Amino acid sequence: MAAGSLTSRADDFPRWYQEVVSGAEMAENGPVRGTMVIRPWGYAIWERLQAALDAGIKAAGAENAYFPLFIPESFLQREAEHVEGFSPELAVVTHAGGKALDEPVVVRPTSETVINSFFAKWIQSHRDLPLLINQWANVVRWELRTRLFLRTTEFLWQEGHTAHSSEAEARAYALQIMRDVYVATTVDVMAIPVLVGRKTERERFAGAIRTWTSEAMMGDAKALQMGTSHELGQNFARAFDISYSGPDGTRELPWQTSWGTSSRLIGALIMVHGDDFGLRLPPALAPQEVVVMVVRAEEGVTRAAAAIVADLAAAGVRVRLDDRVDAGFGRRSIDWELKGVPVRVEVGPRDLLDGQVTVVARHTRAKEQVALGEVVSAVTTLLATVGPELEAEARAFRDGRIRSVDSVDDAIEAGMEGFARLPWRLLGEEGEARIAGETLSVRCLEGPDGGLVADDGDESAVAVVGRSY
Amino acid sequence: MAAGSLTSRADDFPRWYQEVVSGAEMAENGPVRGTMVIRPWGYAIWERLQAALDAGIKAAGAENAYFPLFIPESFLQREAEHVEGFSPELAVVTHAGGKALDEPVVVRPTSETVINSFFAKWIQSHRDLPLLINQWANVVRWELRTRLFLRTTEFLWQEGHTAHSSEAEARAYALQIMRDVYVATTVDVMAIPVLVGRKTERERFAGAIRTWTSEAMMGDAKALQMGTSHELGQNFARAFDISYSGPDGTRELPWQTSWGTSSRLIGALIMVHGDDFGLRLPPALAPQEVVVMVVRAEEGVTRAAAAIVADLAAAGVRVRLDDRVDAGFGRRSIDWELKGVPVRVEVGPRDLLDGQVTVVARHTRAKEQVALGEVVSAVTTLLATVGPELEAEARAFRDGRIRSVDSVDDAIEAGMEGFARLPWRLLGEEGEARIAGETLSVRCLEGPDGGLVADDGDESAVAVVGRSY
Repeated sequence: MAAGSLTSRADDFPRWYQEVVSGAEMAENGPVRGTMVIRPWGYAIWERLQAALDAGIKAAGAENAYFPLFIPESFLQREAEHVEGFSPELAVVTHAGGKALDEPVVVRPTSETVINSFFAKWIQSHRDLPLLINQWANVVRWELRTRLFLRTTEFLWQEGHTAHSSEAEARAYALQIMRDVYVATTVDVMAIPVLVGRKTERERFAGAIRTWTSEAMMGDAKALQMGTSHELGQNFARAFDISYSGPDGTRELPWQTSWGTSSRLIGALIMVHGDDFGLRLPPALAPQEVVVMVVRAEEGVTRAAAAIVADLAAAGVRVRLDDRVDAGFGRRSIDWELKGVPVRVEVGPRDLLDGQVTVVARHTRAKEQVALGEVVSAVTTLLATVGPELEAEARAFRDGRIRSVDSVDDAIEAGMEGFARLPWRLLGEEGEARIAGETLSVRCLEGPDGGLVADDGDESAVAVVGRSY
Repeated sequence: MAAGSLTSRADDFPRWYQEVVSGAEMAENGPVRGTMVIRPWGYAIWERLQAALDAGIKAAGAENAYFPLFIPESFLQREAEHVEGFSPELAVVTHAGGKALDEPVVVRPTSETVINSFFAKWIQSHRDLPLLINQWANVVRWELRTRLFLRTTEFLWQEGHTAHSSEAEARAYALQIMRDVYVATTVDVMAIPVLVGRKTERERFAGAIRTWTSEAMMGDAKALQMGTSHELGQNFARAFDISYSGPDGTRELPWQTSWGTSSRLIGALIMVHGDDFGLRLPPALAPQEVVVMVVRAEEGVTRAAAAIVADLAAAGVRVRLDDRVDAGFGRRSIDWELKGVPVRVEVGPRDLLDGQVTVVARHTRAKEQVALGEVVSAVTTLLATVGPELEAEARAFRDGRIRSVDSVDDAIEAGMEGFARLPWRLLGEEGEARIAGETLSVRCLEGPDGGLVADDGDESAVAVVGRSY
């Protein structure tokens, strides 16, 4: 079968990406520059991803809340690094209700400042700690170069904000979120392997003392940051006057964290798993895991297809019937491939005469004939293999493009084709500035064995260098 | 037990309302005038309500999508009545990314216009119909007089937008959403009875040809609109150039609906079920259905309480342990009453000696001693009664304040104390204008028996007149 009208990934990756987003009916550009309409197929994937993340966040003890879209301009100026980080990207409301506002308000680029201003009210005693808050919301950053899902003026995200009574507890919580929420969701639900490490000072979040990140390699060997978790130290506590009385009555400043991930994860899903025929979805995120297609409407075919749908649904599979026989079978197959539905069951009159149907795996494009009585077991067995196989494929792709090097020159060369691993002591801030001129950056610092390195002075730290989104 | 520090409902209803919202830690005012911070207790209730509505919306076949926050000013001007309805309330972004924008953008007061502009692209053939789209989002309307949950500058809502090939199908769908989503959720999940009817021309949505509404009576006998479902006719199709080729190739305009409800439902929940001790939650919406309280920390008490928590959790009850014995038992009880947790299980050393605990129903404040071995069955039996009893109480309250009258004067008198029912032919548009001067409005038109009246000329229509939020 031909690849429909998609540009091939190898020929023009960015164009291929746009065509998949559009062809799979995931998203379109909105009428205001840089904004995005997320269509039902894209949004249903986001809902499943959001549910997985939300369950992890709740299991980590954080509670959801909602803070206002509009923030007084003055709030952003309280934390010096923070305002510097966000000022160029702010959208400002100057008029409302038919009048000029006395004080313009900004549309939140993050709720860091407003949430901290409420933490100052809510945290009075050591009994109020830890305070663990998460928010699902839209945020706005006026970006000049936008791309659907990856970088849009408005995007959907979650941001967690917590306060703790010790630095150790704050660090442990920041790492718990990274491991139990972000890495668990990325690997187990999205089937995307990640490197976990610490950002350099140059790359870390404005206002943080330490930023943990998870980084995945896309299909063009560039990096995408999947989720970050920040240790904020006492910076925001000082800026927003957050303090509490300790058990012995002394005034203390809490230690804080914040952490977030966003709808750009959908972009990663496309860029990691997609192929020349479109999207390939791990079943955990597929709005439909299986589509049962009526090849041609003939006596008994539609009835047999409907029976298979009923059997699969009874087995707990998310399945839909495609009996739109007024459209061609080939066209419909290409569309379901584009949309990435993990398994197709094709029910045609000839197969039926032999008491069988054709089962097609989207991720391998392998077809097999399956006897009618064995469709449910064949499909559920196949579905169970898809996530692990996609993850293994992405891992092999990535690992084949990671090169350990021992000079900045080699890191620049290797970083253009994948990830270079270079001891941080051989790179340093000077080398980091130099590779920035080559559109490269340090994605994270990790241990020699891929473990965590927490200390800036850690001699064993290895820099992972690559291009990035 | 005293009512803590709450103002009584009878003395000052608005003040009581604010105190419950604040005391139950549901919400606070945001830093920008008219905005709201929804705290975890309020947001967890919203999440449960949202999940119930979303399940109903999906069961009705609509798919979720997401449209941009920012809308070009020009979009709002396309439908004449629509722009008139929303213009005074718009918030406008004039600066972004450090520069003045060429064309200012408005922050969506509703996504009607942007969604219709995409419907114009997505609807080409009769095969594209019906198109059933829903969105969960924040919207902004610059209100002068705000009150938490009931009327805030920014609020959370859902808006559904659909397109159909016939007027009859559009009407049936608008009514299906009203019945299967809004009324079902309001009555079965919120335990709030509603009147369902049609809005008069004066009260209907800007741009609609027919607006269906569900109206509940609050604890101060005022009405609150719980959800509305609009038949838009072909108004937006004309304004946004939405057309499709019919089966015979002719160009047709679709018939459309839109429907919405919002976080103000939380306000209704408080105002209908709250009492002088705070909130009373139906179990379906309670973040915790049961709290098990350790009265005093003594040998065995905390262990017994934890065992009860484990048993209830195993029985599928959402339950938490309150063992914060460093705070007084009385203070903690008052707090859980304020928060409206349906059932408290009090575990104290004296009761335990007799092999029993105290089970307290929040909605009746009745206490009973229950043997340890019967706690799970007693609690689950009690929980099953709460919703229906709250609903019956609200229904009796409302029905006792509905008076059938046969003059405008009597409608004004009765409408000030509850709902007046007056035949529409005795009120008419003139009478409607007159009662508006008395802060009254026609909440809906219904049939003599409370059924639906669809036709403007229906002689049997009865106007329900009342004050409203």
